[in-house]
Amino acid sequence: METFKYSELTKESIQKLVQRNVDPANEIRALVEDVIEHVKLNGDSALVDYALKFDKVELDKLYLDKAELQEIASAVSPDQQEALQTAYANIYKFHKAQLKEEERIETMPGVTCWRELRAIEKVGLYIPGGTAVLPSTFLMLGIPARIAGCSEIVVCSPPQKNGKVNAFIAYVALMLGINKVYLVGGSQAIAAMAYGTETITKVDKIFGPGNQFVTKAKTIIQSTTTTAIDMPAGPSEVLVIADDTAKPAYVAADLLAQAEHGIDSQSILVCTSQTIAEQTLKEVEKQLAVLPRAEIARQAIDNSYIVITNSLDEAMDFSNEYAPEHLILATESWKQLTPKIINAGSVFLGNLTPESVGDYASGTNHTLPTSSYSRAYSGVSVDSFVKKITFQFLTKEGIQNIGPAVEILAEMEGLHAHKNAVSIRLNNK
Amino acid sequence: METFKYSELTKESIQKLVQRNVDPANEIRALVEDVIEHVKLNGDSALVDYALKFDKVELDKLYLDKAELQEIASAVSPDQQEALQTAYANIYKFHKAQLKEEERIETMPGVTCWRELRAIEKVGLYIPGGTAVLPSTFLMLGIPARIAGCSEIVVCSPPQKNGKVNAFIAYVALMLGINKVYLVGGSQAIAAMAYGTETITKVDKIFGPGNQFVTKAKTIIQSTTTTAIDMPAGPSEVLVIADDTAKPAYVAADLLAQAEHGIDSQSILVCTSQTIAEQTLKEVEKQLAVLPRAEIARQAIDNSYIVITNSLDEAMDFSNEYAPEHLILATESWKQLTPKIINAGSVFLGNLTPESVGDYASGTNHTLPTSSYSRAYSGVSVDSFVKKITFQFLTKEGIQNIGPAVEILAEMEGLHAHKNAVSIRLNNK
Repeated sequence: METFKYSELTKESIQKLVQRNVDPANEIRALVEDVIEHVKLNGDSALVDYALKFDKVELDKLYLDKAELQEIASAVSPDQQEALQTAYANIYKFHKAQLKEEERIETMPGVTCWRELRAIEKVGLYIPGGTAVLPSTFLMLGIPARIAGCSEIVVCSPPQKNGKVNAFIAYVALMLGINKVYLVGGSQAIAAMAYGTETITKVDKIFGPGNQFVTKAKTIIQSTTTTAIDMPAGPSEVLVIADDTAKPAYVAADLLAQAEHGIDSQSILVCTSQTIAEQTLKEVEKQLAVLPRAEIARQAIDNSYIVITNSLDEAMDFSNEYAPEHLILATESWKQLTPKIINAGSVFLGNLTPESVGDYASGTNHTLPTSSYSRAYSGVSVDSFVKKITFQFLTKEGIQNIGPAVEILAEMEGLHAHKNAVSIRLNNK
Repeated sequence: METFKYSELTKESIQKLVQRNVDPANEIRALVEDVIEHVKLNGDSALVDYALKFDKVELDKLYLDKAELQEIASAVSPDQQEALQTAYANIYKFHKAQLKEEERIETMPGVTCWRELRAIEKVGLYIPGGTAVLPSTFLMLGIPARIAGCSEIVVCSPPQKNGKVNAFIAYVALMLGINKVYLVGGSQAIAAMAYGTETITKVDKIFGPGNQFVTKAKTIIQSTTTTAIDMPAGPSEVLVIADDTAKPAYVAADLLAQAEHGIDSQSILVCTSQTIAEQTLKEVEKQLAVLPRAEIARQAIDNSYIVITNSLDEAMDFSNEYAPEHLILATESWKQLTPKIINAGSVFLGNLTPESVGDYASGTNHTLPTSSYSRAYSGVSVDSFVKKITFQFLTKEGIQNIGPAVEILAEMEGLHAHKNAVSIRLNNK
């Protein structure tokens, strides 16, 4: 990890440091467009072809049903079941509180406006498989979808070599009351959910992480169909702000937890103390030595860096420029810092709140904006699975009160039919 | 307007009827990409070039300052000022209520999670000019941006022939406390706000309607930069559900108000009464005869249609398939219908609530999802100008309570560094 002094960085060098992952996968666009076109034209048969080609599996049917999921899920041990149930309960509790009825506002006498929530009817969840099986992601997407009340939840996950899904995925499906999992992965899964096939329903919005092919497919369907996506995605990242109240061993563990995700992950340390930074680097080496995924983590750590600042405020300035997906405040003074946070996905406060707890079970969602998208995007929540529809109702008094202003405004914009829709009601008392 | 009987429509013919405007502007993509590239490379000088080429104006500077805006705004008459202030007050009141602090949730003893709002720091508002000057759009975007607390609001609007903006735009800018309006229109404005130029700040999110070039530019920058957009956009549309309690003259006025927007607008009538439908058609002809924009409205009406249903429930089924931007319930029985609404942008209840009031002044936002995007998208609100950042804080008790479950879950996913970030805290009491 290279170390920079904040006071020596120019505005341009900061911009260069925080820059990452701007559409690196554009060279695969044509490839992904081909897959999408093939699925659009040939439906299920294209999906069977791709399963053979990419997943090396010959599928006789495209999904697992409830009985099959139950059989697969029986391999989950009691303590694993309990851990999944703890995660489920916490995620459910936090997300359930996000669903709120809104009050009615009388903006003028007789003019009442309000918003009502409606679940997005049909949603698609993409759950990665292969080497990285992520039951936690399934919980993070399935629970808010259920709380929102989506009437159809389509789940796609790539088949393993045995033509099935992993036991944890099957178990989570059943926890969520989802009785069918489609054995479809990659950009073909995104195409299937965006266009529909003989067996897979066309959905209104697609959620979930994936490799660069999945991500590219989501970007393409977002701009070429009416199907929405949760958010743009890039490699995962963490930024840790530490001062001399931080514990180097904890900070190192947090940096490595991020680094083991993939060689393109970033683990940034912004530190007010040169000593703590040096101790953390030593701890990184020590802990790295015994990690099963050390090779991946090593490469990610090599792509990461340390910034030494003179104050926590400077550290926060750098963090806001970086706009991290995960922000850890490894300091006992975190309370003074939180009001200064402008850009971040999810924030972990103090020395006893590792990112891992949010990844799995604290209750917050782990589907978060990466690659500086936290400047404009929020993480997934129940909000992501609903629409807020506005309503307005005018009484006789209401149209009399507001009508004249609307007539003038419509005339200002040269829209006389707009004006007339009011006048005809005002004049016909 | 062609008339269809709902009972005679197949599922396929309904799909065909509701289908509209799926990326019709793809042939202009290359053109727009050129403009974006030119602005990205040449900044302000490209904008000056395009003003000359497209707006036929030679600009000596790219913006109007406060003094210039004040001079231009002095042309707004007192009754126009009052109408704009009424709109401002209602929109402000409705949107202000959307800004709410959220409660803290203790998901397990010692594990506390919550969300805090943060304004998107830099936002760009595109306000169309030329033939359609829309001060109302400026209010609809500027008010929630101010309520959210965005620290920088960049406004672009194409220059008129005199090298200025319209008086109403200038007046609204000053109402909003915006002291600079950039004289930039079209796809070049979107490019300038996405990439930044010498004088225009790069923004995090771009809002606002526009012609097909503007819309295409927004789609492109959404998928190629980290700048977000409010929503995809298509031509405006209304769907009116009417029964025999509707007033044909009012319904006709509402259909025409939509139709005058543009020849590609749609005005759909879904009616349980053949008689009301026929009377409405007669009223359309009568009112059309005296409209200044009759030529435009005539073409839009010719592209529109009527569906006759046997019940209000069937009418609502069709409406949910159509997923209209604006939905008018021209029936005294609207209360029984609202729970059945699944897809709509904004809803107008009863015979005395024309869409015009929402377009201008009831308080709801008029920037809404068109082209069936209301299946997955909401209209603009204060939510569109903020991010919700999640926070979590664990006490010693908290990490003891949640830690063991997280260790098991991390192990299930084969992520040992994730596990270690918890273990190291559990073991170091």
